[in-house]
Amino acid sequence: MPSPQSEALKSLYRHWSDSLAKNPTMPLDELRRLFDHWGDVTAEPGGVDYIEVDAGGVPALWAVPKGCAQDRVLQCTHGGGYVTGSMYSHRKVYGHFAKAIGCRALILDYRRAPEHVHPAPVDDATTAYRWLLDQGIEPGHIAFTGDSAGGGLAVTTLLRARERGLPMPAATMPLSPWLDMEATSPTFESNRERDALVQRDIVLVMAGTFLGEGGNRKDPLANPLLGDLKGLPPMLIQVGGDETLLDDSRNLADVARRAGVAVTLETEPHMQHVYHFLAGAAPEADDAIERLAAWVRPKLGLGEMSSREDARTTARRAG
Amino acid sequence: MPSPQSEALKSLYRHWSDSLAKNPTMPLDELRRLFDHWGDVTAEPGGVDYIEVDAGGVPALWAVPKGCAQDRVLQCTHGGGYVTGSMYSHRKVYGHFAKAIGCRALILDYRRAPEHVHPAPVDDATTAYRWLLDQGIEPGHIAFTGDSAGGGLAVTTLLRARERGLPMPAATMPLSPWLDMEATSPTFESNRERDALVQRDIVLVMAGTFLGEGGNRKDPLANPLLGDLKGLPPMLIQVGGDETLLDDSRNLADVARRAGVAVTLETEPHMQHVYHFLAGAAPEADDAIERLAAWVRPKLGLGEMSSREDARTTARRAG
Repeated sequence: MPSPQSEALKSLYRHWSDSLAKNPTMPLDELRRLFDHWGDVTAEPGGVDYIEVDAGGVPALWAVPKGCAQDRVLQCTHGGGYVTGSMYSHRKVYGHFAKAIGCRALILDYRRAPEHVHPAPVDDATTAYRWLLDQGIEPGHIAFTGDSAGGGLAVTTLLRARERGLPMPAATMPLSPWLDMEATSPTFESNRERDALVQRDIVLVMAGTFLGEGGNRKDPLANPLLGDLKGLPPMLIQVGGDETLLDDSRNLADVARRAGVAVTLETEPHMQHVYHFLAGAAPEADDAIERLAAWVRPKLGLGEMSSREDARTTARRAG
Repeated sequence: MPSPQSEALKSLYRHWSDSLAKNPTMPLDELRRLFDHWGDVTAEPGGVDYIEVDAGGVPALWAVPKGCAQDRVLQCTHGGGYVTGSMYSHRKVYGHFAKAIGCRALILDYRRAPEHVHPAPVDDATTAYRWLLDQGIEPGHIAFTGDSAGGGLAVTTLLRARERGLPMPAATMPLSPWLDMEATSPTFESNRERDALVQRDIVLVMAGTFLGEGGNRKDPLANPLLGDLKGLPPMLIQVGGDETLLDDSRNLADVARRAGVAVTLETEPHMQHVYHFLAGAAPEADDAIERLAAWVRPKLGLGEMSSREDARTTARRAG
């Protein structure tokens, strides 16, 4: 059974879906204002400072938990279909991640479509990664994460970075990633009624906006399922069981495993798209973030945690 | 006519009032979670860093606009009936204030009732003010502001500071202040149907909780309308015309003027309690904050602004 608290995200998504159904030609600025409220369901992590920074030309927000390891960095790419969302809408959720891991988070405000189509987002995320390396952060002390479209970016940025001759970071953790620009997978149908937000028609419109006129829906830098994933670092995928995008996660796990990547796929039953937004508000999100932190900490050289209780203690200590 | 955007705050207040009506014995933690969402109607100011600090034993949040005058400080005491609200719920609204003025804001997380009754809040605010002075900030470079209960604090802290032999700051700016612990004024009746949140019965319960068992509803450190306001610095009061607490603002202006204080009272027609929460989202709030910034800047030695356009330019420049 899903927790009663997890209903808050479903309600938010229903409100968005209703607003879009009532106003199918909603202007871009109104759509973005709607998605600016994504973080309203997230509790304040507390004990985290937020500092805006120019990351090599990419606007970004540092989330710095008190007492964290300053030389370990989680690079975060927000979701919102490459069109909406920002470093502000995802401030609290990635603040929770940073606090649980005990590192700094760099939340990117990459350029969005339609003003800037593909490959602007993946180029910005690669630029920010290069900037982190230029600051003297070891690649082995950096992990990527991202949600929805930003979960796609947490993989495509690895491909772009490799193209550019940059070393791989320690790990990547796509959350409810959106990957397939053609939205072909069966869960679009099988989870159609359970998913309160993501539907095939909207995904296809978003893909068209993101790729721009004449854009290639089969470009591996937009859909990494079609890319060569050999040599990518360990990958943890977390996804909700009620998502239409569930198959994107399953397919990513399959493709990555076949390429020899160490993959962990965690499917949380009954959960909606990027249920991590319920951080501090629903146990499913808090448990997922604790597991994620326990998974990535040793990869960042931060020492393994033996139990959830340890993760909680660490989070408290960091705060 | 109120702006259509200003409806958002009224909707939030109606939602709270409905929730309280349905659940009159709402547990304290649930009530606080409800009020944690106050800032959901506020737009992100942007270009402001947020850093948690221990202000002489009082937890607080620095809001630091990029390029601001670091040696000018706005001390902010949040509202919420001395029971709810926090430095987090008021982060964005006071971020807007700091950005418009071009100074740092110190948003206090003073102790709240019922765990800590009067005079804990006013003592904490006085402690934080003393801490600012100890950091080497000139009293003439500090202004106080606060909303609702925190608007009361923005006046009572002056009385407590004077008792403790501390110098006066440059100015105080109570916003929709709640002052009268007996809730006797006529606007409780005349604005009863227009005010979507604040009703006499709730105010009396809040006052009882704040003052604690045997607390004195006539203590000037709780209700500064009964205090000696001689020698207080210039005061700007901003209040909504639809508020049941409108008379608290009018009475404060009268009492302060009679004591020789330079007072400006601005009543914004049709507006709800602490309409400043609509910062970045409705013109009434943005205009009020621009006027407030233009009023206080010369008092902080930051130079006068000749027009609203200048205020906007300054805010942009600070960002």
